[in-house]
Amino acid sequence: MTHHCTKFSGHWKIIVFDEESFQGRRHEFTSECSNVMELGFETVRSLRVESGAWVGYEHASYQGQQFVLERGEYPQCDAFGGSNAYHIERLTSFRPIACANHRECRMTIFERENFLGRKGELSDDYPSLQAMGWCNNEVVSSTSSTFFKIYFTFQKQSCLRLSRQFVCYQYPGYRGYQYIMECDRHCGEFKHFKEFGSHCQTPQIQSIRRIQQ
Amino acid sequence: MTHHCTKFSGHWKIIVFDEESFQGRRHEFTSECSNVMELGFETVRSLRVESGAWVGYEHASYQGQQFVLERGEYPQCDAFGGSNAYHIERLTSFRPIACANHRECRMTIFERENFLGRKGELSDDYPSLQAMGWCNNEVVSSTSSTFFKIYFTFQKQSCLRLSRQFVCYQYPGYRGYQYIMECDRHCGEFKHFKEFGSHCQTPQIQSIRRIQQ
Repeated sequence: MTHHCTKFSGHWKIIVFDEESFQGRRHEFTSECSNVMELGFETVRSLRVESGAWVGYEHASYQGQQFVLERGEYPQCDAFGGSNAYHIERLTSFRPIACANHRECRMTIFERENFLGRKGELSDDYPSLQAMGWCNNEVVSSTSSTFFKIYFTFQKQSCLRLSRQFVCYQYPGYRGYQYIMECDRHCGEFKHFKEFGSHCQTPQIQSIRRIQQ
Repeated sequence: MTHHCTKFSGHWKIIVFDEESFQGRRHEFTSECSNVMELGFETVRSLRVESGAWVGYEHASYQGQQFVLERGEYPQCDAFGGSNAYHIERLTSFRPIACANHRECRMTIFERENFLGRKGELSDDYPSLQAMGWCNNEVVSSTSSTFFKIYFTFQKQSCLRLSRQFVCYQYPGYRGYQYIMECDRHCGEFKHFKEFGSHCQTPQIQSIRRIQQ
């Protein structure tokens, strides 16, 4: 069974399985799925992204932990779950995500909420924000946290709708919680960490990268 | 206590703790450590990379799972363990890794061992090798694996020693097992997956990125 989507038809395709290693019940999608349980799945235990990039969610209706699913194979939950720290065993909803040429990605980050404090322009992948100078200004003791509080907006002067999708991570090297930042959500503005995602407890971001189509 | 290293002195610094959240016993290093247990640590449960990039290993003497540690904070094992699929609770040895300007990174990949089959040049970050056309040529059924077998060498014509460190991942989006590829190991050539690392069982690589200094 294939679900079609006018918006994305033909450009996005994902195949999900209810058992590991691409076994068991199988469903193919070219558009979003708000609740895979409605198709008789208990959960998704393996999947293959055949075209486009997708965002998977822990719960139905695109709630809970979110994680990027780019082209390739995910033979078990461990392969698509984003983080050891918050290990998830379920993928219940997913949707296509629009991306474009890596070179066109632009994002502006701010040190404080409501777009205050230090400002930085992003256009590449950054496995360590600290390595590019995004340390906070507090005096740091060896036992205190230096997590950064970073808030996002998209540059007004680069408005290509398909060129501005980023994924932010809690820890360096693209580990930990993932937050998908899209220019067509929240008007492309994320003034407070509560807008990062329903699972976001604090604005702790240590790595950021573009999403590959 | 600080350990110094002539080769890297002053450019690399990591602080490790034997309890989570930067608590408990603390050690600061500017050079490699082949066995943190010799310093009275049972294991490392949190760490902060203050400068340079490092590679951590599951076991002593740089054996077992390996994972990149770039600048930033890792408040618990889950933050530096590379993979859900092979969750590790220990970091026993670690060493600095030499990196340079992202723009100078170059790597040549081959489809088959001993540098045979299709060839590709890498100089960027690739969260999905499939998305850049690295699918294998087999006819793929929905239940078969299409993992890629990829073998590595470094381009002879770009010999900047500090410009050619990559980390390869088992799954897309920088998930799963990590394999650190350095031009000064194995003469910069990795002809067989057994050279990727002591924990490597198969040459399954789905994403590759540069390491950030």
